[in-house]
Amino acid sequence: MRTRLDCVWCMGRQALDAARAATSDPRLQQACMDEVLRRSLGCPLDRTPAEHSMTAYRVVRELTGVADPYAEEKRRENEAALALEDEVERLVDAEPDSLRAAVLASLAGNIIDLGTGQTFDIAEEVDRFLHVAPAHDDYAEFAQALSRAGRVLFAGDNAGEIVFDKPLVRRLAPAEVVYAVKGGPIINDATMDDALAVGMDRLARIVTTGCDAVGAPLHVVGPEFLEELAAADLVISKGQGNLETLDEADADVFFLLKAKCPCVARRLGVGLGDTVIARKGNLPPD
Amino acid sequence: MRTRLDCVWCMGRQALDAARAATSDPRLQQACMDEVLRRSLGCPLDRTPAEHSMTAYRVVRELTGVADPYAEEKRRENEAALALEDEVERLVDAEPDSLRAAVLASLAGNIIDLGTGQTFDIAEEVDRFLHVAPAHDDYAEFAQALSRAGRVLFAGDNAGEIVFDKPLVRRLAPAEVVYAVKGGPIINDATMDDALAVGMDRLARIVTTGCDAVGAPLHVVGPEFLEELAAADLVISKGQGNLETLDEADADVFFLLKAKCPCVARRLGVGLGDTVIARKGNLPPD
Repeated sequence: MRTRLDCVWCMGRQALDAARAATSDPRLQQACMDEVLRRSLGCPLDRTPAEHSMTAYRVVRELTGVADPYAEEKRRENEAALALEDEVERLVDAEPDSLRAAVLASLAGNIIDLGTGQTFDIAEEVDRFLHVAPAHDDYAEFAQALSRAGRVLFAGDNAGEIVFDKPLVRRLAPAEVVYAVKGGPIINDATMDDALAVGMDRLARIVTTGCDAVGAPLHVVGPEFLEELAAADLVISKGQGNLETLDEADADVFFLLKAKCPCVARRLGVGLGDTVIARKGNLPPD
Repeated sequence: MRTRLDCVWCMGRQALDAARAATSDPRLQQACMDEVLRRSLGCPLDRTPAEHSMTAYRVVRELTGVADPYAEEKRRENEAALALEDEVERLVDAEPDSLRAAVLASLAGNIIDLGTGQTFDIAEEVDRFLHVAPAHDDYAEFAQALSRAGRVLFAGDNAGEIVFDKPLVRRLAPAEVVYAVKGGPIINDATMDDALAVGMDRLARIVTTGCDAVGAPLHVVGPEFLEELAAADLVISKGQGNLETLDEADADVFFLLKAKCPCVARRLGVGLGDTVIARKGNLPPD
């Protein structure tokens, strides 16, 4: 997905949010936002938004000296989600089509996202999401593709949210599952620490993108991730960051996400706040 | 109201919206947004947001050569509101306390605002607003202050919206009413053209702020407006722009608005989207 003009001012918004998470000094907060906006001026629109936001969060880290402004938030999100895990697995297991229910539970987890500044009540949402059809629903194609897949690459999204992916990861067997997290901290995206903290390593082989960007910008990720992408028969992509980047991948990708930004919603042809299960080949061109 | 750090990136958002209204050339749109953001870097936070946005909209006018990007939109809003005027007056007149109903109808008109990028259905909203209590409600104080006022200064807000002020203007008698519009175009704020187009001049004496800012920044407005402010026993202030500026006025101001931005909502101590009837003296300090 190419960068929109809206991404430019939104980088300033995100940088200010991150700076506020990193420091209480308003002068330093302003310096972070200003520096990010300065670097965004005249920015080339042929790159992905993920590449610009990577720069933005790096600026905040450099100017504040705080390596991971959302570390504590991620820890809390993992804990909150782990406390709900048994209940979510039970809800999924009780559904007639538990694979579909697991996809919907994974989608429900996607409302946990610090980057958009929204609040949420996850317990309420899970139950609701299990019974609301996504605005774009390629689930039937997903189930068919999965039945033929030997290896699945699951591109995870945020801390906390990854717990809600576990019922789905369990139901991808007999396919081999490789679960990808970020190579370094960005917003509240899950890293290796989070994968281990929630026990994802007991269900799948964990790899990282090799970079500290949201999603997996193909010009930025490490060689290991590119190899996994090439070797996967099917890719499950969670969240906006992965959509922004993996819609350019030469792979059979199914995007699971809630459209939290107007540009992403328009990209998908759905309304703001809608959820989708969308196969890459069925999306309109960017 | 002092400028918040959030106002900086939001200026970029507003500039992009205005540039898109003025031109379909994406390079020119980006140039407008970039130039506004460039001028916002390191911006002093002791001025009002209205002073910064005045600069932003001037940049768009200068770079695109379009003097009034929202001219057609304002014309359409006036027409749409005029088509509803008789119905609104009838609804107000049917209420037991028609002064209060007129205040609520004026508030209902405040949801018409291009600057926030929201959509609306005004016919639905008017009826709803007449029966929903504002989150902060100083109406009783307003009615008492009005009963003692010889002269009222009514600081209007947007085109279209000003039609919904007419039932209230009619009910301010026996006080003399001076209705203020903007001295030049900014977003969809009403100017003298709009006041005349909706016939406000038949109900009140029309003055302008003498400047092309939202609201009435006291260091920027013309001497005529300052004289009217000093001569008024009571000021009715519509919308966010007027709140951003008239909360610094030495006058008995009643703010009628819907909090459309998180910073304004926090300033007022209400939730985003809430409406208020708030006397200046009852507001928390900025």
